[in-house]
Amino acid sequence: MGMIGGGKDAFIGAVHRLALNMDGQIELVAGALSINPEVAVESGRSLFLDESRIYTDYKIMLEKEAAMPVEEKLDFVSIVTPNFVHFEPAMMALEKGFHVVIEKPITFSLEQAKQLKAKVEETGLDLLLCHTYTGYPMVKQAKQLLQSGVLGKIRKVYVEYPQGWLSTFLEGTGQAQASWRTDPKRSGKAGSMGDIGTHAFNLAEYVTGLQVVKICADLNTIVEGRMLDDDGAVLLNFNNGASGVLMATQIAAGEENNVKIRVYCEKGGIEWKQEDANTLLVKWLDKPAEIYRAGTGYLDSFASHNCRTPAGHPEGYLEAFANLYRNFALTLKAKISGEHPKEEWLDFPSAKEGVRGMAFIENVVKSGQSDYKWISFEV
Amino acid sequence: MGMIGGGKDAFIGAVHRLALNMDGQIELVAGALSINPEVAVESGRSLFLDESRIYTDYKIMLEKEAAMPVEEKLDFVSIVTPNFVHFEPAMMALEKGFHVVIEKPITFSLEQAKQLKAKVEETGLDLLLCHTYTGYPMVKQAKQLLQSGVLGKIRKVYVEYPQGWLSTFLEGTGQAQASWRTDPKRSGKAGSMGDIGTHAFNLAEYVTGLQVVKICADLNTIVEGRMLDDDGAVLLNFNNGASGVLMATQIAAGEENNVKIRVYCEKGGIEWKQEDANTLLVKWLDKPAEIYRAGTGYLDSFASHNCRTPAGHPEGYLEAFANLYRNFALTLKAKISGEHPKEEWLDFPSAKEGVRGMAFIENVVKSGQSDYKWISFEV
Amino acid sequence: MGMIGGGKDAFIGAVHRLALNMDGQIELVAGALSINPEVAVESGRSLFLDESRIYTDYKIMLEKEAAMPVEEKLDFVSIVTPNFVHFEPAMMALEKGFHVVIEKPITFSLEQAKQLKAKVEETGLDLLLCHTYTGYPMVKQAKQLLQSGVLGKIRKVYVEYPQGWLSTFLEGTGQAQASWRTDPKRSGKAGSMGDIGTHAFNLAEYVTGLQVVKICADLNTIVEGRMLDDDGAVLLNFNNGASGVLMATQIAAGEENNVKIRVYCEKGGIEWKQEDANTLLVKWLDKPAEIYRAGTGYLDSFASHNCRTPAGHPEGYLEAFANLYRNFALTLKAKISGEHPKEEWLDFPSAKEGVRGMAFIENVVKSGQSDYKWISFEV
Amino acid sequence: MGMIGGGKDAFIGAVHRLALNMDGQIELVAGALSINPEVAVESGRSLFLDESRIYTDYKIMLEKEAAMPVEEKLDFVSIVTPNFVHFEPAMMALEKGFHVVIEKPITFSLEQAKQLKAKVEETGLDLLLCHTYTGYPMVKQAKQLLQSGVLGKIRKVYVEYPQGWLSTFLEGTGQAQASWRTDPKRSGKAGSMGDIGTHAFNLAEYVTGLQVVKICADLNTIVEGRMLDDDGAVLLNFNNGASGVLMATQIAAGEENNVKIRVYCEKGGIEWKQEDANTLLVKWLDKPAEIYRAGTGYLDSFASHNCRTPAGHPEGYLEAFANLYRNFALTLKAKISGEHPKEEWLDFPSAKEGVRGMAFIENVVKSGQSDYKWISFEV
Repeated sequence: MGMIGGGKDAFIGAVHRLALNMDGQIELVAGALSINPEVAVESGRSLFLDESRIYTDYKIMLEKEAAMPVEEKLDFVSIVTPNFVHFEPAMMALEKGFHVVIEKPITFSLEQAKQLKAKVEETGLDLLLCHTYTGYPMVKQAKQLLQSGVLGKIRKVYVEYPQGWLSTFLEGTGQAQASWRTDPKRSGKAGSMGDIGTHAFNLAEYVTGLQVVKICADLNTIVEGRMLDDDGAVLLNFNNGASGVLMATQIAAGEENNVKIRVYCEKGGIEWKQEDANTLLVKWLDKPAEIYRAGTGYLDSFASHNCRTPAGHPEGYLEAFANLYRNFALTLKAKISGEHPKEEWLDFPSAKEGVRGMAFIENVVKSGQSDYKWISFEV
Repeated sequence: MGMIGGGKDAFIGAVHRLALNMDGQIELVAGALSINPEVAVESGRSLFLDESRIYTDYKIMLEKEAAMPVEEKLDFVSIVTPNFVHFEPAMMALEKGFHVVIEKPITFSLEQAKQLKAKVEETGLDLLLCHTYTGYPMVKQAKQLLQSGVLGKIRKVYVEYPQGWLSTFLEGTGQAQASWRTDPKRSGKAGSMGDIGTHAFNLAEYVTGLQVVKICADLNTIVEGRMLDDDGAVLLNFNNGASGVLMATQIAAGEENNVKIRVYCEKGGIEWKQEDANTLLVKWLDKPAEIYRAGTGYLDSFASHNCRTPAGHPEGYLEAFANLYRNFALTLKAKISGEHPKEEWLDFPSAKEGVRGMAFIENVVKSGQSDYKWISFEV
Repeated sequence: MGMIGGGKDAFIGAVHRLALNMDGQIELVAGALSINPEVAVESGRSLFLDESRIYTDYKIMLEKEAAMPVEEKLDFVSIVTPNFVHFEPAMMALEKGFHVVIEKPITFSLEQAKQLKAKVEETGLDLLLCHTYTGYPMVKQAKQLLQSGVLGKIRKVYVEYPQGWLSTFLEGTGQAQASWRTDPKRSGKAGSMGDIGTHAFNLAEYVTGLQVVKICADLNTIVEGRMLDDDGAVLLNFNNGASGVLMATQIAAGEENNVKIRVYCEKGGIEWKQEDANTLLVKWLDKPAEIYRAGTGYLDSFASHNCRTPAGHPEGYLEAFANLYRNFALTLKAKISGEHPKEEWLDFPSAKEGVRGMAFIENVVKSGQSDYKWISFEV
Repeated sequence: MGMIGGGKDAFIGAVHRLALNMDGQIELVAGALSINPEVAVESGRSLFLDESRIYTDYKIMLEKEAAMPVEEKLDFVSIVTPNFVHFEPAMMALEKGFHVVIEKPITFSLEQAKQLKAKVEETGLDLLLCHTYTGYPMVKQAKQLLQSGVLGKIRKVYVEYPQGWLSTFLEGTGQAQASWRTDPKRSGKAGSMGDIGTHAFNLAEYVTGLQVVKICADLNTIVEGRMLDDDGAVLLNFNNGASGVLMATQIAAGEENNVKIRVYCEKGGIEWKQEDANTLLVKWLDKPAEIYRAGTGYLDSFASHNCRTPAGHPEGYLEAFANLYRNFALTLKAKISGEHPKEEWLDFPSAKEGVRGMAFIENVVKSGQSDYKWISFEV
């Protein structure tokens, strides 16, 4: 595979490489790793790429690689650039016949997301959208338990993503991550809601299997001088009548990345948080709560397929990320071999989730500006 | 002291007695423990009351006790009846010269609460409103830390009170607690928001020292047939510009009483939850979080005054409740002796908090019915 | 009831009063609260004792009270003096016909403990030995689960009591608690092993229902100048063939009182610790661990009898202590009424446990000095 | 690099590959992956090895690879076979000039370990011994804190490794992992003490920087029919006078792999456990405990060098394992380039730790059979 963006000092590109390397099934062989040609070359060399496949322009990479013999050319490309450079390379990659991996949020606007989704459907190619938290085995176990009906109908959803790293005017120091994420030209209409709110939103829809139909948002820009929201809370209504609360903030000083979801049903509920990622609490109305653990023998096939080590040897964020890549690769491989991918492999976020994520951003910004309480969640 | 309500099988009356007994400074000597005369008498006997001070009507009790010599008569009365029987006995007790302890919410309506507050001010007598969670030493430590300024300005408040015990139509079974709490004639305008939302609201205002000025509420009645809200979430705005989220639900199946508060400031934040009541987490932007513990030597005077046992010997709900009574009793005793009560003793909720709690109920119901997002918090 | 010892500034006497007051069933009416007559009088007054029943000598108290009419005189006495003043008042109290509550360890020597036990049996009176941790509802739940056989045969026991408060030479500062506990003339043959090792030992035998038959001890005196052990570990063998490890230390700097027990059986195990006293973890070989919680509806009668508040409202050390007193009082009351006490009420530690605790001290000291690995646990 | 052992269905070989792949700096290019030639070939193919470098005999692999040109041949080999097949391939690899990675325990006997250590020293080649737990960043942080002296002198060490997977006679079912680990011909003199006791022992010596000088062991074989110990506890004495307790068991039904260490010093202590691997608790005698977290900015260079993701994105067992490989690879690369490896890179377990681990096994078995309490820890 090849990578667009993710040169030296980029954060998420390095994470992608850690994740795709892990299982030894995917090899990075080409890259247009930076818009700065020097950085692109230097980064490619440090990753042991063949000189001929270190590119300084992703368009050239896609052109050249598309022209290669099938057994040599890239299977897919990963796009790990800032939000405003997602759409064009993704469209071009699909048009050139490459499957695509893309960071969230999928595009810069909802309109782009819809076009990209149409292109995916038109080409029949696969797209992986990196909502990492859905790669955790215990998140998958939660989804399976909720869908099994054993807990009854879903009534209430609390999902939260508290971070503290933007508690100061970090973008004023030139810090790279802070700079583009707080810049509407590069990040999009929303700040914290685009960056982490979309993760929380996706997690809620993934785990519950429900869709948000109405929202009421309170968005705030707490740190002086900041150009986008850095804090927000959203009241949710789901298509089965359940209600919920989504909280995402980047000014919760002292918080790291403890994304957490709780879902309550008629007979009990589930609770999962990234800080204790290998545990799923299952609570019951009238019997002791249960502690489901990754790597154990009693898990559902969707959860156990995504575990690598025995129970008690913790797997973390990189393994969750690697699960996205592994399931994507297993799916591609099966299709290439003319086989039908297993349900467990197909369980990765794609263009559909991308469109809903972009709709979340646009709706939440609209609601944040509205004097009315509820607005319909428009896609 | 004497008690109104709280006969056999009442829940909160028994809790009051456990709490007031604990420190051996308060003696229950009279009671009108039930409107059912038989229950009143039986309950009084089981509590070793003198036959002459077992009453079947609180009005008679207040009349007779008021006429007794000062060294014999009651110092104060505790009113532990359902919400709709708070106002009249409290007004009468104050008029008869008794200090008053009263369960929350203070009255049945905001209007009553204001009248009661006026009466307290007019008589110069003391009133203790039983917001138990403010009696925990680590809640007091949190308040002191936030007020000290060491964490910087408050920016965000999350407070939640999830319960699961009303997940089914329990009032349909005749269960006493469920029956009156879900009955608008006995409970008031709100269900879960009155019963536990007021606790969460009080906790937030107490710990932060701020006041809510705007709210946006989503109230739900989840269980079919129920007459009042059993679930809700409220977006908050505080008078210093901070925002917040309050969540209170009684249909979170599997949850007990894990009321929890998180407050984030410029430099760090605090986190406290009842499930781990003897611990206060203090988080910092750029150094390790700290675990403050009850009973240790490094606590503030407000926290340490409210600890009874050495660190690691857990104190719980009854001790927190007993702290309310102890501080109230210490205050009365000091005033009787003509001394000035210590600041630490005066730190108990009273009529002012009662009025704000009733205002919370009325505003939250109003907002829940409104199509507009924000309404002013009117008192 | 009356109290011997426990005057102003005493630690455990105050705890006893908090515990016995709580349920409003026991009244402190007499006391010989200090060997210092001034302290005795002042302490008695501050506790609202009648002047005629404030004594300056426990012998006089026992004499005078024994001569009173039955409806006036004490039902029982609580002995809360340092270890070396347990035996004589206890023997005299029994001889005078009083039931006895006594702090652990029961006496100064094993020989005394045996004599006291014989006296209890001879008189038919009741004795409560204050091993507080056995008063926690979830400890009782653990015992019941283990005895039910559902977990299979017990194989391994880990029990630990780490404290840090004697990490420095505190007795050198004159601190009262440290001074007598580290003084062999007042404390006995063992320091940490007598003070907290006996609690751990009792907890292990109580929860498992087993008896220790062989031990191998490593005792240490870590802090320079100290006269007794302040740290130790003991390998255990039980009468069913199970093995175990007991750890007790008072130099674990930073530790409070987190006494903890884990028991493993053929099919699963249990884990309880004081820091999270309202939770019992039940682990299983091949299914999710369960979280049993105090105050819930699914508990055993022994556990639920010892809960006062609904699940999630934490009960702590004082409630556990109050459970000892309450069960003792319920037992006495039943016997006085000619009724048979319930099994749940009789479940409190007594002279038998006192003898085993003293045997633990003597055996552990002997083993600590032995070059051989195992010694028989002699009683 | 090349691998010896670790074919299809092997547990630890797969873990090694996950770990060495992660950082994209190490490539598996050759393997003698099984003694079964068919499995060896099939496994090699599934790992995309070049046919010419799939070997069915490790001796042939080492011969052939040694004869290759330097730019093509292996840099190092990883030996992931059962214990009884460690020594010979390791010796041969060193003799042929390859650096060596080897699973713990390093050899089958102490004598072999010493010979291997001598060979490492003689050849000047590097050896990595896979004590994975020392690869966790927060374990490294603990070591640095203890060595900095800020906590004062070390006094007490508790280390434990409770597992439950051998609670039944699993080897009787033919389960591969259980079979060789409980077989003295393949595993060595000790069962649980060799398999996980050595990890606990290594962790204790690594974190404290101390050496065990005396031990007293209680070894048990709990499950009927088992040929080696499956449970044990060891009292420890360290070379600075500190004492300790090591507990390792494989019959703690319901336990996974929650290896845990606590170290207490004059002024405070540290606590780390694998279940919460990204957290290090630092406790203090007279101030709040601190929560050190992986990925934060305030960590020591040894800890931060071994973190890949921002704080709150959990890293786990595979990352810890990858840290061993990465530090080993960075060290080799530096040496190959004629540079001096950084201190942080050299911080991996090697032959010296291998010898001490084998000495632990031999001493603990000897002590287990002894009637005397203490034996010297002989190397």
